[in-house]
Amino acid sequence: MKEKDIHSLIFRTFRQGRNVIVGPGDDCAALDLGGGRLFLMAVDQVVSDVHYFGNRTSAAEAALKLLNRNLSDIAAMGGEPAFALLTIASRSADSRWITSFLGAIRKEAAKWKISICGGDISSTPKDVTVCTLTITGWVDKGRICLRKEARAGDFLYATGCFGNSFKSGHHLKFAPRVEAGKFLAGKYTRCMIDVSDGLLADSKRICEASNVSLVIDQSSVPLRKGADVKSALSEGEDYELIFAVSPSKAAILEKEWPFSKIRLSRIGRFVPGRKGNIFGADEKLLTSRYKAGYEHFGS
Amino acid sequence: MKEKDIHSLIFRTFRQGRNVIVGPGDDCAALDLGGGRLFLMAVDQVVSDVHYFGNRTSAAEAALKLLNRNLSDIAAMGGEPAFALLTIASRSADSRWITSFLGAIRKEAAKWKISICGGDISSTPKDVTVCTLTITGWVDKGRICLRKEARAGDFLYATGCFGNSFKSGHHLKFAPRVEAGKFLAGKYTRCMIDVSDGLLADSKRICEASNVSLVIDQSSVPLRKGADVKSALSEGEDYELIFAVSPSKAAILEKEWPFSKIRLSRIGRFVPGRKGNIFGADEKLLTSRYKAGYEHFGS
Repeated sequence: MKEKDIHSLIFRTFRQGRNVIVGPGDDCAALDLGGGRLFLMAVDQVVSDVHYFGNRTSAAEAALKLLNRNLSDIAAMGGEPAFALLTIASRSADSRWITSFLGAIRKEAAKWKISICGGDISSTPKDVTVCTLTITGWVDKGRICLRKEARAGDFLYATGCFGNSFKSGHHLKFAPRVEAGKFLAGKYTRCMIDVSDGLLADSKRICEASNVSLVIDQSSVPLRKGADVKSALSEGEDYELIFAVSPSKAAILEKEWPFSKIRLSRIGRFVPGRKGNIFGADEKLLTSRYKAGYEHFGS
Repeated sequence: MKEKDIHSLIFRTFRQGRNVIVGPGDDCAALDLGGGRLFLMAVDQVVSDVHYFGNRTSAAEAALKLLNRNLSDIAAMGGEPAFALLTIASRSADSRWITSFLGAIRKEAAKWKISICGGDISSTPKDVTVCTLTITGWVDKGRICLRKEARAGDFLYATGCFGNSFKSGHHLKFAPRVEAGKFLAGKYTRCMIDVSDGLLADSKRICEASNVSLVIDQSSVPLRKGADVKSALSEGEDYELIFAVSPSKAAILEKEWPFSKIRLSRIGRFVPGRKGNIFGADEKLLTSRYKAGYEHFGS
């Protein structure tokens, strides 16, 4: 087991109050604060030379990546973003960088009507920058999408294309699928995740949480320009949505899909079997042939 | 103007939705999500060799400092803590450190009945650790305490002692004044702040937000063991509450104060005058004699 997984498991042992409907282990936590909606909360970070190139990526690009990573988590729950908090820890010399970062966040947050209602700025003793954003949002109780809701027989659909995210710069300029998530949630799916760690790794999370296996037809996975199947399955940072759709809703989804600029693809089908197993079209285990899970390019 | 202040000002220009009752510039943001209570949100961070000694402070001590700094912000609003999110960015080699940090947070959060409902762990490329905690909480609309609510004539009261926080280790082992904050809020004060950057610096924030001056009787400021007046006024990291009390409530507050282990002191009085000016008992400006505002010991 990887260290990262060990730490994730510790998170899941944290004691949760009764109003925590979804705790650690999904894209967002979901809290019942009263009323018909659930309050979503998530936090994500970008670290220099881990999530972006400290010396090549602009402050504005890093800022958008941070905000959009968080929005992608809200999208995966079928939610609508609301409030956010921001932290920056960076060398104190980086005043211009911080100002530019804040300017980009302010502009993009306004576009989404997100209130960035607080934050904190600190210095770091070495040349490392760590920025975090806490995102909140809302989703109707009857529409929330969880990793554990896939059923054997459901199709696996995906938005957009996969692979070659780093080299193509997609990881810095992707558009989070908030509108698509809202369209899908409740009506077409109750099971969704965003692909940050890789199509295989994140599909596997659905399979494990839902206690099913999955068959992916590799040839049906849409490739980003410059990507091959291996990169599409395992590299990650795609920030696309993948979701389970019951066969009774698949045809109507494909007919009603309203986003002409966002490709919709049926790429697999959930099947009964050992939880977490993912097979290719040739019925061989994909998870053993391709590295499942993306390792960031830093240490 | 210091860089930190410039960046704080940028935060205040972020556009806020109508349900953001208190935005950037107080200890917590306060959101009206419906119902009689306000939802509080704040985020704070601890950075190695800035907020704690990377090579001397244990992971558990750093964890408690992070959680308790956040709880101190909730206390300053008169609030009750609820949910939290956590991030850790650290060298990937530090698995034992992370495990110990998470264990300490889990134990302390359970004590406060805080649900840590999500988080994120990342690596850093260099030997720097940045941990953040997003805290949320609740406070009744009629009890929330804000920096801008001091009136000329009000007394300034303080919990606990001041000064010598770093050398004494107080900054790692302080008890956040959540219970005291809840006792005071609404009934005795509507204006409160926690002292993190120094008694003068944080008093000044009240004076600026409330558009008043302040006279502090230096001899009435309770000193922590080993502290002198200068350290008590300017060093910071005390995590005590200071708050405005109208003369009509002062005697009853002193009589009813239920916390036998927490010292309560009247240390000053707000007066009409130029906003932000703080005078000593000799009517000379304190803000020019003592450095107002604490600089963390890192870069």
